[in-house]
Parts: sequence; structure tokens; C-alpha cells
Amino acid sequence: MADSSTPSFKAADLVIQLTSSPKTKPDIGDFGTVFTDHMLVIEWSLAEGWEAPLIRPFGNLSLHPACSSLHYGIQLFEGFKAYRGDDDQLRLFRPMLNMNRMAKSAKRACLPAFDQAELLECIRRLVEVDQDWVPHSDLASLYVRPTFIGTEPSLGLKKPTRALLYVILSQAGFYFKTKAEAVSLWADPKFTRAWKGGTGDCKMGGNYGCSLSAQYEAEDHGCQQVLWLYGDDHQITEAGTMNVFLHWINENGEEELATPPLDGIILPGVTRQSILELTRQWGEFEVTERYITMDQLCSALKQQRVKEMFGSGTACMICPVGHVVYQGENLHIPHQDAQLTSRIAKELTDIQYGRTPCDWTLLV
Amino acid sequence: MADSSTPSFKAADLVIQLTSSPKTKPDIGDFGTVFTDHMLVIEWSLAEGWEAPLIRPFGNLSLHPACSSLHYGIQLFEGFKAYRGDDDQLRLFRPMLNMNRMAKSAKRACLPAFDQAELLECIRRLVEVDQDWVPHSDLASLYVRPTFIGTEPSLGLKKPTRALLYVILSQAGFYFKTKAEAVSLWADPKFTRAWKGGTGDCKMGGNYGCSLSAQYEAEDHGCQQVLWLYGDDHQITEAGTMNVFLHWINENGEEELATPPLDGIILPGVTRQSILELTRQWGEFEVTERYITMDQLCSALKQQRVKEMFGSGTACMICPVGHVVYQGENLHIPHQDAQLTSRIAKELTDIQYGRTPCDWTLLV
Repeated sequence: MADSSTPSFKAADLVIQLTSSPKTKPDIGDFGTVFTDHMLVIEWSLAEGWEAPLIRPFGNLSLHPACSSLHYGIQLFEGFKAYRGDDDQLRLFRPMLNMNRMAKSAKRACLPAFDQAELLECIRRLVEVDQDWVPHSDLASLYVRPTFIGTEPSLGLKKPTRALLYVILSQAGFYFKTKAEAVSLWADPKFTRAWKGGTGDCKMGGNYGCSLSAQYEAEDHGCQQVLWLYGDDHQITEAGTMNVFLHWINENGEEELATPPLDGIILPGVTRQSILELTRQWGEFEVTERYITMDQLCSALKQQRVKEMFGSGTACMICPVGHVVYQGENLHIPHQDAQLTSRIAKELTDIQYGRTPCDWTLLV
Repeated sequence: MADSSTPSFKAADLVIQLTSSPKTKPDIGDFGTVFTDHMLVIEWSLAEGWEAPLIRPFGNLSLHPACSSLHYGIQLFEGFKAYRGDDDQLRLFRPMLNMNRMAKSAKRACLPAFDQAELLECIRRLVEVDQDWVPHSDLASLYVRPTFIGTEPSLGLKKPTRALLYVILSQAGFYFKTKAEAVSLWADPKFTRAWKGGTGDCKMGGNYGCSLSAQYEAEDHGCQQVLWLYGDDHQITEAGTMNVFLHWINENGEEELATPPLDGIILPGVTRQSILELTRQWGEFEVTERYITMDQLCSALKQQRVKEMFGSGTACMICPVGHVVYQGENLHIPHQDAQLTSRIAKELTDIQYGRTPCDWTLLV
């Protein structure tokens, strides 16, 4: 999206201020609770353009209380991981896909453009600075969280004249160990995650804040996540904050792995794309981007045509679905052997941890 | 919504720290750019509950960079005004309606409950402290901006365990002087402001961030605001950040003032409610909450049944619509005499500035 004419910060201008008091690294705790010693901050203003990128000690942000990210949701984020391989090399998994999606979200949020390759190089340098924080384990990783917020210090709703791009790093345990727990999903058509003409295909904060109360209603009904439906025909769209896949024998008797198409309401997940590309390479069954309705799922379950259903995302990678509660029925989804889920998880982790050479990883 | 059992901060516990260096009050500039000397802050945590409310010198917030308001749009705001009357008394206009809506938004955003009357009393005290900032003019006012954000310092998407409620004050010029400029609206069905199952009826940040790019597309087409449509029949919902009213002779030949009903996608505006109540009291024409489609508007324009169309909101109060650009046509909306708009504006400002005694105002 950016070309050489896009005004952008440059990684060559990066300034590094190291902390004088590095933290003691604790055991890997809950996802996203422990942060590393440094962060990347890059300021932008309409008057001055981009300032030089700065790696500085991790610490609080000082924000004007009228700041547009706090009032009008002018904010977006990304998430990907750095993995320490068996060879002790650090790898980022397809980070350029995150950079591109971030540029797209920035355009949607009316935040300024930047050169994606320059940002990625700054992030690579940040991970390098905090490399000791990348766990020595193939069950854990370092989560990279780029964030981009409007810092316009006034209340009129308008394109921000100031903005802040920053990146923080946090240790992450690995969700999918020897055998993942299957989740139960609450499918209630009264909840809508995203809609045509909205921001469901961008990683903007508003998509998440509006989903939270549905998540708690799911929990009240004994489920772990929401299965987000759309339209009068109750199309399956996403599960919690994951893309969703159905492995089944379809209406025509063909074995198929299906996920909803990128029609504006689906987040274009990097794991989603990787699963599509991987399974298409196998050439063993149909791999399609298509609409799936709850009616189709229910019929397939009755006729025992469902093999597996799973969610995908950077945080969990792959998460099998065990149950869907829908219109008073608790639908059991086959997940005992989780053959496909396990195979995809193994192939992806082999790439992420460097056991399978692949150009999907970027060495730090 | 709150009752005596709702754990809440109390205005009786308010602590006031006055600034030692009050600012020079500038001329009234652009809306929301100049802030007063003090702000109200009230912190909450799951562990400790609400802390004592604090009025302190206006200044930046120190926020953890993982703070959930910056990543997941866990944020909401309100807006109302303090007016200085001809009698030099300061009045707030129906502020309890804002408090109630704020409590509703907080529930939707999974932010903690509070006692609305206690918050209003803290805000009254804040306005009292900064009373010299309320303009000596019946063309201007002091804008009150309560804000409520999640300050959870971790990246997992969940109910915040920390939150911050704060209130800032800013001088506001008066939009509607002797004769308001009529705005032109860009009505493109590809934009959707809000949807059923979403947060369009709450004042959450995500509703605004996702609207910004449409606003700039409207400007690219020579219009000032977006006319937000909904559904296949292109229902008229809101205009920019205003509720919208149509004064017309309806299909049955009756004079009617119509505005879309509060069906989940419409913000329940305080000015909207006040206009409905005021015009119903007059008893001079039908006042209804009903759906209006673009087809109905186009037919009525062709048959010269449209008298006026206007937007309403706290910032502008009432704003006549002069043109709607829709599907390649520039529809002219009558607004030359703006009879109804002017009459409503006069009655409302007479209440706000204390010229008409009314229990809609709260003395500071």
C-alpha cells in the first residue's frame, strides 16, 4: 500500500534509549499481563509529519484527556508473535501481513500512512533489544502488539492532527499443548459483531469493546465464546475473536474445509490465510471461502457429515469447537480425535519454531 | 438505574485540589479546543471499588500502554452544556438524562455502575469551581464532557479490573446565531453508522471512529455531513452526529414532525427528546417516532410536501438541512424561512438561558 512517495519514519533514524533497570523476568503468566523492558514509540503530527522512531524504557503514556483515541475510538492494533526455535534463532511469523493489515486499518481510522517495511524493521530491532524475553520453549512465545492511536487534543470529531504509533511486547504461553481443550460457543442471533459498511474487516478497537457484553452473556449460559451470526439466515461469521472453519462432507457429498469469505465483516486473519494456503497445498480436499448458515451446520450434524470445527487466531492458533448452543439446543461437534486440527497445528508450529524451513518466517 | 445498593463514589467525599496557576481565559475559539483550569477524576478498581472523587488541576492522564480503552475501545462519553443566564445564574440543561444514558453505556461497555445523582453533584461542583469559564454570552456556553474508560493494564479481552471516570470542561461557541447555515448531507447506502445488535444506541467511542472516513468522503463530494441510511429500503437514521427530524405533510395529508424510533440503532439524544416533548406540548401537528425511507422523502419533495428537515444534538442544538445528495441527485430541502427550526431554537434557548422558567434546568 505504501510506496516510496509515502511520507514515513525510517528505521535508519531509530534512536535507542536503553533502560538502566531491567526487570527480573517472571515465569510465563497469563497472556498479555507481563511486558518487556522496552517499547517502540513513533509520534506523528500534521504540522511536522513523522518523528524519528524511538525505542525507550517501557512506561506509561502521557495523554491529553481530550485525546481522540479515548473519546472516539480512533485506534487500531495488530498482534503477532516471535518464536525461539530449537536452533535458538528468533522468528516472526508472516509479520508483513500484519503490517499490511495495519496500514489498511489506519486508512479506515483516518490515521496517517506509513511505510510498512520501515515499521517492521523498527519492530525487529525492538525484539532484538528485548530478545532475552522470548521464551526458551516451544510452548510459548513473545507476543508483539503494535498499536496506533489518534492523540488529537480537542473534542471536535475530525481527522487527528496528532497520532502515536507504539509497540509493546508481552510473554505469551502457548494455548495448544498436546491436546487442545475444545470450546463451547453461544450462538444467539441477537448479537452482531460487525456489519456491512462497518469496520469488521479492520482491527479497530470499536470491534472489540462492543463484543464484550455478549462474551459475558455467553459465559452466563455456560459457554466460553460467542459464535457470531449474521443476517436473517444466521450465517456463521467468527467465534469470539477467532476466524472459524468447518471441516465436513458438504451438501454435494464432497469433503471440504470451509471458512466465511472476506466480504467486509470478517477479519482477514493471518492464521486463517495460512490455514487456507497450507491445506490447499495438500490438495486432499476442497478448501473454500463460502457462507455457512446455522441451518446447514444443523443438517450436517444430524446427518453426521461434520468432521471438525475450529477457530483460528494468533493468540490461540487453532482452537477446536466442542459444542454450539443455538436456539435452546446444545449441538455436539465432533472433536475427539481432532485429526485435522492437530495436523495443522503441528505443521504451523514446525514452521514457527524453525523445524520446517519456510519463507513465512522472518529471522530477527 | 442505580439504586441505593449500587456501590458508588459519593460527592460528599469529594477532594478539591485547586490549581496554583490559573490560565488566562482566551476568546471563545473552536469547539472543544480550550479547556478550563480543573478536571474531575474518579478511579475504580475491582479490588478497591470506587475511590474518592477528586477535582484537580487540568492535565494529562498517565495511562498504561496496554490500557483496554486504547486497544479495545472500552470507552464512552457524554456531552451537555452549562449556560450563563441573563440573571447571571449558571444552568445545566437536563443533565440527569445524560447521567442515565451514561449509566446505560457503561453497562454496555462492561464498565462499573455508579450512582448517577452522585456523579451529577460532583460535576456541579466542578462547574462551580470553574464558573468564571462559563461565557458571559447567550451565544456561547461551557461544554461538559464526562468520559469513562477501561484502564485494565493487560491485553486479554475481558471486563476491565480498573477504570477511570473523568470530566473535562471546554468553552463552546453557539452554532445557531440569528440564522443557522443549512448543511448539505451525503446519503450513500454503502455507509452504515450502526446496526441491530451493536452499540448505536450508546455513546461509545467505536460509533464515532468508524464514522470518520465516511465523513471525509462526504466532504470529497462537497457535502458537510453524512446522512446515515439503514437497510435495503434506505431508512433515514441520523445525520453526522445528530438525530434527524422531518417536518412534512405525510402520505395521509397530515402535518407531521417525524424522527426515527429508538430501535437500537439511534442515539437517544437529549435534544431529540426535548424537541419531541416540546412540540407534543404545542399540540399543533402530529409528532411521531417512525421510520422514514429515502423513497418517502423523495416522493414528498416531488409533491412539495416537505416543510423542513433538521438535525439535533447538544453541540449544534438544531441544524437545518439544505440539501441531500442521493444516488446522483442533489435534492433541495426547503429551509429558507426555517420557521419551525427557529421557533424550537428560541424556546430551547429561552429555557437554557433562564428566560423561561422550566424544571429542565439545574442551577449550579
